[in-house]
Amino acid sequence: MKIALIQQKSYVTKEKTVKKTLNDISNASQNGAKLIVLQELHQTEYFCQSEDTKFFDYADSWKEDIAFWSNIAKEHNIVLVTSLFEQRTAGLYHNTAVVFDSDGSVAGKYRKMHIPDDPGFYEKFYFTPGDLGFEPIETSLGKLGVLICWDQWYPEAARLMTLKGAELLIYPTAIGWFDEDRKEEKERQLDSWITIQRSHAIANGLPVISCNRVGFEKDSSGVMDGIRFWGNSFVCDPQGSLIAHANHQEETILYADISKERTKEVRDIWPFLRDRRIDTYEDLLKRYCD
Amino acid sequence: MKIALIQQKSYVTKEKTVKKTLNDISNASQNGAKLIVLQELHQTEYFCQSEDTKFFDYADSWKEDIAFWSNIAKEHNIVLVTSLFEQRTAGLYHNTAVVFDSDGSVAGKYRKMHIPDDPGFYEKFYFTPGDLGFEPIETSLGKLGVLICWDQWYPEAARLMTLKGAELLIYPTAIGWFDEDRKEEKERQLDSWITIQRSHAIANGLPVISCNRVGFEKDSSGVMDGIRFWGNSFVCDPQGSLIAHANHQEETILYADISKERTKEVRDIWPFLRDRRIDTYEDLLKRYCD
Repeated sequence: MKIALIQQKSYVTKEKTVKKTLNDISNASQNGAKLIVLQELHQTEYFCQSEDTKFFDYADSWKEDIAFWSNIAKEHNIVLVTSLFEQRTAGLYHNTAVVFDSDGSVAGKYRKMHIPDDPGFYEKFYFTPGDLGFEPIETSLGKLGVLICWDQWYPEAARLMTLKGAELLIYPTAIGWFDEDRKEEKERQLDSWITIQRSHAIANGLPVISCNRVGFEKDSSGVMDGIRFWGNSFVCDPQGSLIAHANHQEETILYADISKERTKEVRDIWPFLRDRRIDTYEDLLKRYCD
Repeated sequence: MKIALIQQKSYVTKEKTVKKTLNDISNASQNGAKLIVLQELHQTEYFCQSEDTKFFDYADSWKEDIAFWSNIAKEHNIVLVTSLFEQRTAGLYHNTAVVFDSDGSVAGKYRKMHIPDDPGFYEKFYFTPGDLGFEPIETSLGKLGVLICWDQWYPEAARLMTLKGAELLIYPTAIGWFDEDRKEEKERQLDSWITIQRSHAIANGLPVISCNRVGFEKDSSGVMDGIRFWGNSFVCDPQGSLIAHANHQEETILYADISKERTKEVRDIWPFLRDRRIDTYEDLLKRYCD
């Protein structure tokens, strides 16, 4: 199964940004990609760098956005993983991945469950934590375990998707460096980010797809300089081996061939699911055991 | 805090193997190590390559072994992590880490919870799965999250130790290659093994210490050739960065300096424990959601 990840910049306006995405989708589709994954909140800049109610307006188009991307999926006959800003009602918003099947139908939604809040990533202001749980989305290409960005740091999320039958783990994401950090710290952060996601492949015997944005985006509030999104979108196999990997500064359509059969081969050798001590995991449901 | 891992070969007899270990402990202690970690089942060869009741005799000395290593810890004034074959009663055995404090007292025990069973690693024949849970062991150097070998593939084990206050994660282990496997497969296996353990450091903001055996050990049953234990003992910091790393073929006393303060710095930047969705993790207690 040929897949494509679109690692791109924000072009300031939604119109220009989406135009670039559509161009890449068209190319990827012509090159045979059947599953196309877009980065987190791909229609706009990463607006969570500051807290400003004006950005809630971006969610006004939620319903039109769904209709729009539905048409794109149908036109190109692809399964399409989008990442949108959901307005559920006034004052209630989610960071939501919508997956479209190749006939344009909505295959399913995933509302980001783990919400970060750190300097430059003020997501708790914008997004209500998801309430749809960790449910794989059934498509004509299989069951997709779609998670979003901050979720990638949580082994629990990947495991739950696995236990519910996901055949791929997919992370649309938006993560980058602050220019003022030292080179060694930047390298450690990037390496940790790749490592933790590869570990989900290994622990669960599943391919992992991670699609990140790239390029510098200014903090519009002027409080900080901005974020240099580090790209490095990648695909790894069920042993965690990288099979495709983009660099840190260029827009890229990243292609990979994924074999779902490899999961069975790897899991039959490394049968981690067989030996889980579910009789002793109850404290995982606690915040802390003090 | 200076620590040392002793990565060594099996010298066929217990007497010779332990003699080498004692020599290394003496050197490590003289070089200032306060915590010394030994590899899995360090007193003997890795006898689980075949299923033979004669090997249960190795557990006859369980009580004497405890007295023996207690004296060593006291003599060198070190916290010592050992990995022994526990005879609990006739026909009931565990793969048990015993931790001694620097005064020679038994600080605590950990009975291996996840038990493998694969060609060449027939541990389900020998070891009853642990029934002491995932409890860190309190020592004069802090709370040690001791886990053993196969446990290292389970994010659940590392998380539970973390939630119970572990300040370090420690894995005595015995893992290696079969010579007949292809070079690429061997590289993938080693890389997966390092990656999954580094991921526990990252997910939990804790240093990880992994001590593996090295050298070739024949399968005494003659069914398979044997296992070439791949060494590569390592220590990584709470971001998963390697701070000490042994090679795949040499006996090594591997030293590292560990800073417990670094955990707070890293966790304050990456507060993963803050955002766990414990209200939605209940299915982690299931074998599979079908």
